[in-house]
Amino acid sequence: MPQVLAYVTDDEQCQFHRTTIDRRDPGPTEVYFEIKYAGICHSDIHTARAEWGQPLYPLVPGHEIAGIVTQVGDQVTRFAVGDRVGVGCFVDSCGECEQCRAGTEQFCTSREAPTVWTYNSIGRDGLPTAGGYSQGITVEQDYVCRIPDAIPFEAAAPLLCAGITLYSPLNRWDAGPGKRVAIVGMGGLGHMGVQIAAKMGAEVVVISQTMSKREDGLKFGASDYFAMDDPDRLKQLRGSLDLIVSTVSANINLDGLLRLLKPHGVLVDVGLPQHASTLRLGSLTSGNKVLAGSNIGGIPETQEMLDFCAEHQIAPQTEMITGEDITAAYDKVVNSQVRYRYVIDTSTF
Amino acid sequence: MPQVLAYVTDDEQCQFHRTTIDRRDPGPTEVYFEIKYAGICHSDIHTARAEWGQPLYPLVPGHEIAGIVTQVGDQVTRFAVGDRVGVGCFVDSCGECEQCRAGTEQFCTSREAPTVWTYNSIGRDGLPTAGGYSQGITVEQDYVCRIPDAIPFEAAAPLLCAGITLYSPLNRWDAGPGKRVAIVGMGGLGHMGVQIAAKMGAEVVVISQTMSKREDGLKFGASDYFAMDDPDRLKQLRGSLDLIVSTVSANINLDGLLRLLKPHGVLVDVGLPQHASTLRLGSLTSGNKVLAGSNIGGIPETQEMLDFCAEHQIAPQTEMITGEDITAAYDKVVNSQVRYRYVIDTSTF
Repeated sequence: MPQVLAYVTDDEQCQFHRTTIDRRDPGPTEVYFEIKYAGICHSDIHTARAEWGQPLYPLVPGHEIAGIVTQVGDQVTRFAVGDRVGVGCFVDSCGECEQCRAGTEQFCTSREAPTVWTYNSIGRDGLPTAGGYSQGITVEQDYVCRIPDAIPFEAAAPLLCAGITLYSPLNRWDAGPGKRVAIVGMGGLGHMGVQIAAKMGAEVVVISQTMSKREDGLKFGASDYFAMDDPDRLKQLRGSLDLIVSTVSANINLDGLLRLLKPHGVLVDVGLPQHASTLRLGSLTSGNKVLAGSNIGGIPETQEMLDFCAEHQIAPQTEMITGEDITAAYDKVVNSQVRYRYVIDTSTF
Repeated sequence: MPQVLAYVTDDEQCQFHRTTIDRRDPGPTEVYFEIKYAGICHSDIHTARAEWGQPLYPLVPGHEIAGIVTQVGDQVTRFAVGDRVGVGCFVDSCGECEQCRAGTEQFCTSREAPTVWTYNSIGRDGLPTAGGYSQGITVEQDYVCRIPDAIPFEAAAPLLCAGITLYSPLNRWDAGPGKRVAIVGMGGLGHMGVQIAAKMGAEVVVISQTMSKREDGLKFGASDYFAMDDPDRLKQLRGSLDLIVSTVSANINLDGLLRLLKPHGVLVDVGLPQHASTLRLGSLTSGNKVLAGSNIGGIPETQEMLDFCAEHQIAPQTEMITGEDITAAYDKVVNSQVRYRYVIDTSTF
């Protein structure tokens, strides 16, 4: 049984400290891989701080994971030792329900064997799952993605959550040539959305809290940049957008954003504000508009996203940190001080 | 210039009385038709009672209009004297913008010549428009639909608003074989939705306030009937629906309805509650769900709906009333006493 170093929090204070955890030996269809890098996602913080309910402490978060296969079960067909692989937000599901068969395993409807999240969940061994802030992990082969050679490990890690979270709605709602797309929020999610939408061929604008990240936005592929704190200028966008993807986790003015859409336009939320929002349904009926939610993506689409990013040289802008930096990094993420994703180098553990 | 009898209200008290109004002689591309029947739509009442802002009094409502062409302009190509025709919620638009060219003239984006509503709007002659509670109307030919011979006039009238209001979202969001669809509300709109969705091939259930109209619902094609006042039984629907169309104008529990959808399911609102609603965006992200609005339909889709209803023998269940009955009918509609649409016989004026 592999024992690995990991960073763990014992409670919602999130004072991370080094520990050793057990990983199971890979079963017949499982792979074990050494984790090289793990991204810090805002949802790690929500979970670890108990903002989304009481988690299973001690907690090892991390669902943006990239590394190299070092052991495979004897029935593994999809991977071999030495393969470059990644794991995102989930590591198992029933594999048999309508959703699993359609490749949207994150919405598995099984009661007996529902989606197992990468951490803060109960795995097939009956034990709490532990995530990517560790030096290795054992995962069923069907929940592992292949990282194309063109993508460095440290860039691949954030794609497994932030990348797919933006790719999926942009893909589903037809971002592409002739479409005008706004990305709301220029953080870890938003800066991926700008790049992906631009490479899909859409005209992209950013709507951020302020103009402070304007240069970065243009560098990532946006043609224009707007700030929530300049509502007069924002009015220029009224009725002009085909698609808006909102990445902000603070409450947003849904009616205000819907006004920026053309008839038949679509506003997708991936930011998941904590509190209920208010909405005038007339904002949707006036123009047959759509408000949709999107939650990561299934394994086939995640692989498609990785291949797309490799082909189009899309990568997150990252800041590398050590295991000892995790505690401080949480506050910096919440205060929007990171540009644009912290990636933990597990060789520092 | 044709002068016709009409029923008018002078203020938000909605005491309708008989009057005479002028209609313009048809221009080169216009038709004039004698109105046989006009439906009473709930939005007539909202408008006439000034619940949606101050209307243009004196007001002749009515946008569910059916009759026979008696005059045509000398460049009219689409209609001839004697044709059976209908008009819905709008009578003009720019004809040139992206929306008009796409056949969704109700969302015309022109500033100079936007959508002209059938009443409570300013027409191309610069005068306030007057609706179907009258014995005749002059309309540009491109905004007139053909009523198939298989549909009696009195059944055709409510199709022009209630029919298209339900047909359009059911069509757009793929009601059909293999789909499980719920219609929320069993009023003038809902009873059309049940019939249309069933004839499209979907399995249809009704979610009504109470079970009082259950027999009617099953007669119209529903396979099951649920009541909001029996939340325990309603739970049986959780995660089982592909599509929900809500027709109720009271505030609805959006999060509760969204729980009834499968992943990727769609909730469409056509009921347009007066006040803002609350919504947890997590209800959408959990399962990539969609909340959409839908507002009537354009001319091509309205014609398609009429042809569909003729082919499938779909008709509203109506109660015929006289001009003198309109005032009392408004209260009965608001109190849900009508089964299911009042239709005014203009020969009683």
